[in-house]
Amino acid sequence: MNMIEILKQRGKSVEVFISKYIISENIPNRLRDSMRYSLEAGGKRLRPVLCLTSAMLFESDVEKILPFASAIEMIHTYSLIHDDLPAMDDDDLRRGKPSNHKAFDEATAILAGDGLLTDAFGLMCMADVPPATLVEAIREFALAAGSSGMVGGQALDMMYTGGAAISFDDLKEMHAMKTGALIRASCLCGAILAGADGDGRRHVADFGRELGIAFQIVDDILDIVSDTATLGKPAGSDIEKRKNTYPALLGLEESKSLACSHAEAAKASLAAFSGHDADFLRALADMTVQRVA
Amino acid sequence: MNMIEILKQRGKSVEVFISKYIISENIPNRLRDSMRYSLEAGGKRLRPVLCLTSAMLFESDVEKILPFASAIEMIHTYSLIHDDLPAMDDDDLRRGKPSNHKAFDEATAILAGDGLLTDAFGLMCMADVPPATLVEAIREFALAAGSSGMVGGQALDMMYTGGAAISFDDLKEMHAMKTGALIRASCLCGAILAGADGDGRRHVADFGRELGIAFQIVDDILDIVSDTATLGKPAGSDIEKRKNTYPALLGLEESKSLACSHAEAAKASLAAFSGHDADFLRALADMTVQRVA
Repeated sequence: MNMIEILKQRGKSVEVFISKYIISENIPNRLRDSMRYSLEAGGKRLRPVLCLTSAMLFESDVEKILPFASAIEMIHTYSLIHDDLPAMDDDDLRRGKPSNHKAFDEATAILAGDGLLTDAFGLMCMADVPPATLVEAIREFALAAGSSGMVGGQALDMMYTGGAAISFDDLKEMHAMKTGALIRASCLCGAILAGADGDGRRHVADFGRELGIAFQIVDDILDIVSDTATLGKPAGSDIEKRKNTYPALLGLEESKSLACSHAEAAKASLAAFSGHDADFLRALADMTVQRVA
Repeated sequence: MNMIEILKQRGKSVEVFISKYIISENIPNRLRDSMRYSLEAGGKRLRPVLCLTSAMLFESDVEKILPFASAIEMIHTYSLIHDDLPAMDDDDLRRGKPSNHKAFDEATAILAGDGLLTDAFGLMCMADVPPATLVEAIREFALAAGSSGMVGGQALDMMYTGGAAISFDDLKEMHAMKTGALIRASCLCGAILAGADGDGRRHVADFGRELGIAFQIVDDILDIVSDTATLGKPAGSDIEKRKNTYPALLGLEESKSLACSHAEAAKASLAAFSGHDADFLRALADMTVQRVA
């Protein structure tokens, strides 16, 4: 099986798990429809696949952490729904479809996000690993997703947008929080849940951190060089909104080269690992900088 | 010490814990200010006090579950911030002060809510109890706060508001989810964290369920009979917004009598418990129906 097939297959296992979960709960219909709408809108399922594959570096049976990996995708999805809201980035298009508040309404979109976020933590608790390990992973993930991580990064982005240009250090910090923290935590929590020791965790966390930076730089680049149909969201919107991005600060060429060097650093972090899953993670790092959407 | 003093003292311990926590985290300034604004706006701290006191029925040292009780108040606070948003209940006043999106802005209010909710789950993980117990309590609380609990109840409320009158069963279900689930879970999680057995948990959960119903009925009544200055939020807004409430469906007198009978049922659920903390919980049930704000 090639890399794309593995990515699809692991992503599919997450999608199946989430679908079953959403149906099983006693959620009011319109709210459930809204949550499903965004969950089933597609996407690469990168974060849960990173979690599962990072776990596979240490432990072959990762079925038991599928609830946790699925919860990660729910948290990522909530963040997209809230980011698109009129009061935030005000985006009408996401993954080639109307964004959640356009397909439903603003109140429902806010609540769908709140529901996905809250339910995700309940779902994490269902991972079949030693409870002390599970508590550690939940804590790590909450830190990455909360006010000193992803939510804080979005707050910084809102604050900076439309204002004066920010420094490279501020840009790096904002993106490390907004995008990087969740990608890093997805990898790290996979390692934690699979019982990795301190060194193992550190290598995997380093991989996630570097991959997260590369991912965001490429996201910024694609907003400029790609088109709306390919991206599934409005191309060129960063410039229009006067967002702080890597290309805006460094130019396209330097941004591309920076993305490549972070992808290389990500791969180097896995030097201690051999075998199929480590190769897959290294291939993911390459795919991250080569992707077109 | 009388009941009011105990309530204040236990609420204060939660406030002190939360203040220390919020300062210790690396949260962007404006986001932190917004989170603190709503956390420090006052309130009775009823839910964390219920959690602590329910725990005290089974275990005297509850210092170790203070992180969990504090997290409950953070989740309650996030729900108030999001409920007040223009797209939701559109309330400008909360606890006698401008609501969060009025004091800051809509994006910041959404993110403050998201941050409080996410951080709360991280904080829960810091409770110093056996990890298996902790995982059970986190799962229980996430269920109560999520799309089949509080968030689902708010979605139903939004859907029903302004429409045709709903049935008594629909009203009860909506309020049980929107308000009741969190109050019940606050009690139940206290019992779980303190190591209560099945019977103990059941009694405490029953107490919380009945108290939650009584609390909501009185809330609906106060919106009619009280005034804005006393409530700290606009009185009469339920009628203005054509909200579904107990008095709208049953009239004031029948609503009052229903609240009293649920408070009595709450007290009866604790028949197996004696001692100071059980007395305090029973007094809280009485205070719930006698309160004026």
